[in-house]
Amino acid sequence: MKKNVNIAVVGLGQIGNYLLNELNTKKKDIELKTGKKIKIIAISAKNPKKKRKFKINKNIFYKNPVDIIKKTNVDILFEAIGYSDGVSKKVVELSLKKKIHVITPNKALIAKHGDYLAKLAEKNKVNLEFEASVAGGIPILRTIKEGLATNKITKVYGILNGTCNYILSEMETSKNTFSNVLKKAQLLGYAEPGNPKLDLNGYDAFAKVRILSSLSFNKKISNKKCLMEGIENIDYKDIDIANQLNFRIKLLGITELINNKLFERVHPCLVKKDSYIGNVNGVMNAVIVHGYPIGESILQGEGAGPGATSSALMSDFLSILRGNIKYPFGLPNIKRKIPLVYNVDQYSNSLYLRFEVKDKPGVLSQITKQLAKRKISVERLIQIPDHKRKTASIVIITHKANEYNAQKCIKSIRSNKNILKNPILIRLL
Amino acid sequence: MKKNVNIAVVGLGQIGNYLLNELNTKKKDIELKTGKKIKIIAISAKNPKKKRKFKINKNIFYKNPVDIIKKTNVDILFEAIGYSDGVSKKVVELSLKKKIHVITPNKALIAKHGDYLAKLAEKNKVNLEFEASVAGGIPILRTIKEGLATNKITKVYGILNGTCNYILSEMETSKNTFSNVLKKAQLLGYAEPGNPKLDLNGYDAFAKVRILSSLSFNKKISNKKCLMEGIENIDYKDIDIANQLNFRIKLLGITELINNKLFERVHPCLVKKDSYIGNVNGVMNAVIVHGYPIGESILQGEGAGPGATSSALMSDFLSILRGNIKYPFGLPNIKRKIPLVYNVDQYSNSLYLRFEVKDKPGVLSQITKQLAKRKISVERLIQIPDHKRKTASIVIITHKANEYNAQKCIKSIRSNKNILKNPILIRLL
Repeated sequence: MKKNVNIAVVGLGQIGNYLLNELNTKKKDIELKTGKKIKIIAISAKNPKKKRKFKINKNIFYKNPVDIIKKTNVDILFEAIGYSDGVSKKVVELSLKKKIHVITPNKALIAKHGDYLAKLAEKNKVNLEFEASVAGGIPILRTIKEGLATNKITKVYGILNGTCNYILSEMETSKNTFSNVLKKAQLLGYAEPGNPKLDLNGYDAFAKVRILSSLSFNKKISNKKCLMEGIENIDYKDIDIANQLNFRIKLLGITELINNKLFERVHPCLVKKDSYIGNVNGVMNAVIVHGYPIGESILQGEGAGPGATSSALMSDFLSILRGNIKYPFGLPNIKRKIPLVYNVDQYSNSLYLRFEVKDKPGVLSQITKQLAKRKISVERLIQIPDHKRKTASIVIITHKANEYNAQKCIKSIRSNKNILKNPILIRLL
Repeated sequence: MKKNVNIAVVGLGQIGNYLLNELNTKKKDIELKTGKKIKIIAISAKNPKKKRKFKINKNIFYKNPVDIIKKTNVDILFEAIGYSDGVSKKVVELSLKKKIHVITPNKALIAKHGDYLAKLAEKNKVNLEFEASVAGGIPILRTIKEGLATNKITKVYGILNGTCNYILSEMETSKNTFSNVLKKAQLLGYAEPGNPKLDLNGYDAFAKVRILSSLSFNKKISNKKCLMEGIENIDYKDIDIANQLNFRIKLLGITELINNKLFERVHPCLVKKDSYIGNVNGVMNAVIVHGYPIGESILQGEGAGPGATSSALMSDFLSILRGNIKYPFGLPNIKRKIPLVYNVDQYSNSLYLRFEVKDKPGVLSQITKQLAKRKISVERLIQIPDHKRKTASIVIITHKANEYNAQKCIKSIRSNKNILKNPILIRLL
């Protein structure tokens, strides 16, 4: 790469704006570490007049980001718009085709079009870097691609969504409801004020799981259906009961190979209170990698926010400036096979089940009969009566139960007129 | 780098031997990820006949490792002998001069001669890589150099010696003495059977601290005296009392900038039982990085053992094969300044003090008088009598106390004839 490097930043929301300030203030440090002189020659955003934390230079502002690619001589472009398609995809695509290196924190884009874009980058011999797309404050992609490069990784899991982890932690400590804590999270800027759905329904964590899978197992990104549940249905009651049973509830993203088949999932999990993952609270992210010969490696740090995200974007930036041209997914695109996918129906796991029932004779027996029919065996059972309402909560921790059987069983129990609400199922880690 | 790459491994102890097997079994994976065909063309060790876990190919054996450098066409050399000087230094030095890339897990060598060797590598445009020198299973050097490249790091600390952490954990759980647990550690292969001193006296952790400092703060490696204490004097009694006070004792390596001055230290620390670091037990290593804008990042993994160490060596190896030529310490040698060093006498910290005293009137007052004289104020005081022996243990947790004053104070208390043993001082984290 030549000594003077031209930079463009497209998208000036919280992240793009913070990044721009980092680029401006760290020019000297960057030159020291890479020998390159950087110049920001173009920026673009929907609204140039929006109030921003750091001032932007309007002389280099482009209304249409495509003009930057067509009309300027940019070498490295940051895409910080954030859509999985539309202008985000267009800008990245055109840049790679024009031999411009691209850096992006856009997990939705990479999870959906990563394979195609990686191929494009490889063909044009430029970098496509996306460290910031998964757990910004944790250099986990670099760790998998480089630090653990020759390990045989078998499982990666962790807390990949700080918003959900904050909400679950806060529900526990403040003994408050989901909706109240969500409001608080929105006020604090941890959850989007308008539409927090992509965080809460597990989609955000899931896009990250897909990226982690493809890097960890050297496969193409899977596009098959998978197990995805969010935290919208977590009741304070479950957090409270879990607590009494010495568990905490965490939203985990998990990817593993079972008999060489890929099993990706995002769902709430009951984790032991005295486990490492049970003690990662608040907006923190944590990732645990199982590999050989490494054993178990743990990484923890801030997952989101403009600071942590910029830190990851800057690490990608320095990697490019240092001339480290690499395959975006660590090996040539043509060598990455489409993964075989594990059938979730075959999966067996211990479960936490909660049934809200009428407090009258025979109900418990109706439930246990259904469980027995589906070969689900009970490890622990607690019945908590609500004398006022003449109802009871029946909480069951099962031995390992087959997923398909468990879903069928819950469906039949749900149809029982003595069952007052949809049963709750939370998997144990 | 050319397509066919010739490798040499010098030193075939536990690590070198394991590495050799990894190189042999992962040739395909390496070619897939880097496009390079590797060939091991030379090996060397003190004793070719020693019984090893994996067989060695005697046709490529050299008695004198210098011959490998002089007579073969090696591209990348692994140094796994392990001395800070002597043949280790000679082999690395000659290799770099002959434009051979060097990879080493040798912390003693890097902590002592890292600056000189880095200069040599830079001059000859080859890599000198030493990821495995600090916490093998944790890619911490790569994380600091690359993953957190533009962060302003202010402090790095952690559990850097698995042997010491195992001994302290095991003393707590088995309620056993230091010497008994050390014997067990030696049987299990966690501590060297012959001379475990370099682990136990803190030197091993200290060499790692020096390497972490220079990378984190972009300075030359310091050669100034620093605070170094091992775990040889930790009594089960202190572990037990700490436990009652809700603390654990951990040997920590800590490096930080205080008013832009480098403060490096290794010593046992009282850490809260419910803290993250208080729950890293057994042979695990953990490193915590404070930086801006990253906040706090945590990395945990196996610290030593041939598997973890080989994983780190292999990551360095792939980095070189991928063509990532880099400054060994992340920036040009000439730009790395000699660090200013913090005067430990100025340091203030809370302390745990234990005095074994004759159980007679006035002794406590003699101690507290000395403390007051040195402006050391008591936060908590426990006196535990031993009626049989007519002695008592006086345990004091102080408020922040000046290091110089504390040492002076202990010296004067020690000379008191009512004090039966050398007082114990352990710093709080």
